[in-house]
Amino acid sequence: MSFQYIKNGGVASAKGFKAVGVTAGIKVSGKPDMSLIFSESPANFAGVFTTCSFAAAPVRVCQKRVKEIETVQAIIVNSGNANACTGVEGIKNAELMCERIAAKLDLPNGASDVLVSSTGRIGVQLDFSLIDHGIDLAIKAIKNHKYAELDNNLLSAEAIMTTDTVPKYCAVEVTAASGKKYTIGAMTKGAGMIDPEMKAVPHATMLCYVVTDAQLNNQQLTKLLGDSAEKSFNCINIDGDMSTNDTMLILANGTSGVAIDENSQDEEIFATALDDLSIKLAKEMVIDGEGVTKLVTIDIEGANNDTDAKQCANAIANSLLCKTAWFGGDPNWGRVIAAAGYSKVDFVPEDVKMYYDEYLVVENGMPTDVAEEVLAKEVLAKDNFTVRLVLGNGKGKCRMWTNDISYEYVKINAEYHT
Amino acid sequence: MSFQYIKNGGVASAKGFKAVGVTAGIKVSGKPDMSLIFSESPANFAGVFTTCSFAAAPVRVCQKRVKEIETVQAIIVNSGNANACTGVEGIKNAELMCERIAAKLDLPNGASDVLVSSTGRIGVQLDFSLIDHGIDLAIKAIKNHKYAELDNNLLSAEAIMTTDTVPKYCAVEVTAASGKKYTIGAMTKGAGMIDPEMKAVPHATMLCYVVTDAQLNNQQLTKLLGDSAEKSFNCINIDGDMSTNDTMLILANGTSGVAIDENSQDEEIFATALDDLSIKLAKEMVIDGEGVTKLVTIDIEGANNDTDAKQCANAIANSLLCKTAWFGGDPNWGRVIAAAGYSKVDFVPEDVKMYYDEYLVVENGMPTDVAEEVLAKEVLAKDNFTVRLVLGNGKGKCRMWTNDISYEYVKINAEYHT
Repeated sequence: MSFQYIKNGGVASAKGFKAVGVTAGIKVSGKPDMSLIFSESPANFAGVFTTCSFAAAPVRVCQKRVKEIETVQAIIVNSGNANACTGVEGIKNAELMCERIAAKLDLPNGASDVLVSSTGRIGVQLDFSLIDHGIDLAIKAIKNHKYAELDNNLLSAEAIMTTDTVPKYCAVEVTAASGKKYTIGAMTKGAGMIDPEMKAVPHATMLCYVVTDAQLNNQQLTKLLGDSAEKSFNCINIDGDMSTNDTMLILANGTSGVAIDENSQDEEIFATALDDLSIKLAKEMVIDGEGVTKLVTIDIEGANNDTDAKQCANAIANSLLCKTAWFGGDPNWGRVIAAAGYSKVDFVPEDVKMYYDEYLVVENGMPTDVAEEVLAKEVLAKDNFTVRLVLGNGKGKCRMWTNDISYEYVKINAEYHT
Repeated sequence: MSFQYIKNGGVASAKGFKAVGVTAGIKVSGKPDMSLIFSESPANFAGVFTTCSFAAAPVRVCQKRVKEIETVQAIIVNSGNANACTGVEGIKNAELMCERIAAKLDLPNGASDVLVSSTGRIGVQLDFSLIDHGIDLAIKAIKNHKYAELDNNLLSAEAIMTTDTVPKYCAVEVTAASGKKYTIGAMTKGAGMIDPEMKAVPHATMLCYVVTDAQLNNQQLTKLLGDSAEKSFNCINIDGDMSTNDTMLILANGTSGVAIDENSQDEEIFATALDDLSIKLAKEMVIDGEGVTKLVTIDIEGANNDTDAKQCANAIANSLLCKTAWFGGDPNWGRVIAAAGYSKVDFVPEDVKMYYDEYLVVENGMPTDVAEEVLAKEVLAKDNFTVRLVLGNGKGKCRMWTNDISYEYVKINAEYHT
């Protein structure tokens, strides 16, 4: 293995990066609600965003930066308020957050050196006195920061949480072909409004920040980030909703001295490590989904092509009837088969094989003689199992991760004001 | 008005039709579980069906009849077992149900004179001794049947229920241009697995049986049934799932002596009456949706075209986050706007106006000054309200009906084995 996970690693683990989490007071709960990631030197970057027409103000600001700017040095994130559906004032406020950070960190190019994200309630203007307070605290914390300080990995990840119950962050140390080492660190949040739909312009389905001290150009980062999002965050489905604020950003500042050449073996190693880290965080996100009690892996094989396989997996992952059956510990393979059937994917029903873990449950368009009680006890009772469909058509396949839907999901979403 | 509802009318209200509901013992609950509709003379007919690849055995049998046969005389329906994913034996059993009915009613063309439906648990073979018992009871009841007997309207509608809490049936008396009168009667069931998606071949999203004593040919019936399904059952969304068994059938036996000419004023009157009756039953189905506490009308206006409008309405009607917010009595217009935003429908966010009933809540991409407390009290507290989006693009529009998602929904679907 050319990479290994760093114990308690995160966005502060890569060289030349600092990250902090502070409490500005935006969240009513009084929990940490502002993160700042700072790169000591200008970093190349790339981003993928929500494809929602009502993209939030900070998303629009980031999209502008991706188009217009070559490097950035900081990312400021607040939770508790999404700064979405906030009109012209919202855009001004998002830019103002960048300006304040740039001024206080003496960044050479001003606001355009800073990326910004917000998550939380929609349609309420930011209380800028709280934002200012948070920025002051964050700057103070950054100035007292030591590299790779483990508390900061945790704190910065905590400060971007909304209905998440656990912070989600990790880092890998990667060994390049030359034997030199570099680091990739990341943190993510998101427990609702999670849906994998990806079109020509990929979008991340949550907030995720990746930093690396390797050297890569913006074109490489764009390609690698898009590919990785496709295999990880775009292959999870919690409730089928997409947010106004979904954002995934990657920064590369080259501080490790390891340069990743285009189309090199090193780029492949980087991609493998990034994918692994993204999939790990994506699965943690599913497990931490609102009210989730089970992680369900959907494996589709034998489709005409990968697109068909994903469409089939998505129909199952999106089915409320499947998700509530799993919550009830009911194998109810009929609902799985029905969802595959209405996915509009081409197959002959009689050729389909369906498995719950290693148990073959449907063959020749009919159930096998595996007793439902056996499935309930040996598979559905677990908090982690696999639904596998072999369509019998071609070589297309897809792996997706989803969850059950519980009373708790309804409770959280009936009571939480996003 | 050229038509009026008949008090307690149903499928037994049209001339020359008999309908009964009996208890075969298929349902564990011991409730009525078999319906038989019989036309004294051969009836023209049409059907629309699920587009699910795993279409159930009785659906395949009906699809065959639609292709091969000109007239039918009976529909046999059982609840408690869907006869879906039951392979070759399932098809044989569905045909056998038709054969038995044909034999006992002395129908001239045998099994091909009979249509069949099943609803209930998937993947279990029918217990034919129970089916035979039910058929005996149904035939006995039919032979003692009086025309338009109100009890039979109720009983036959009850016998097709699964998780429905109320039987859903009605009939209209229509006055033709000549002043002559005829009747359209209908019954429907369905409270889960309800989704409006309609493609080239329209599908009904539940079981629905319509009978009329007017005279129409099969081509007319196909067109009228498809159009009506599109405006009614295909415009409701309870949980986004489509079933293996969705079926809507119409039979016309001409017993009233009123012939409906093609493209005539009478055909328009018939269409208007059929649409009204279908929409009425479709809305009743939403209100009776599993765990539903609120009926929400989604009105989309100002889309580029009707297809766009439907796509936008569907995104909102399908959003778990909107549905749980409504359950919680939370206006949370942000979730509605987000769903419209990810529907991939073309509009300028700043041009969109969103209303809860008569309250304008979003304009210029931002909330208006209507207090959320006012919305919660005046709109969301009601069990019936409208979400209206004016997209500001063109003349495309769509009206859809949906519901909230409650604890009860999860409970029913975690515990009920379809």
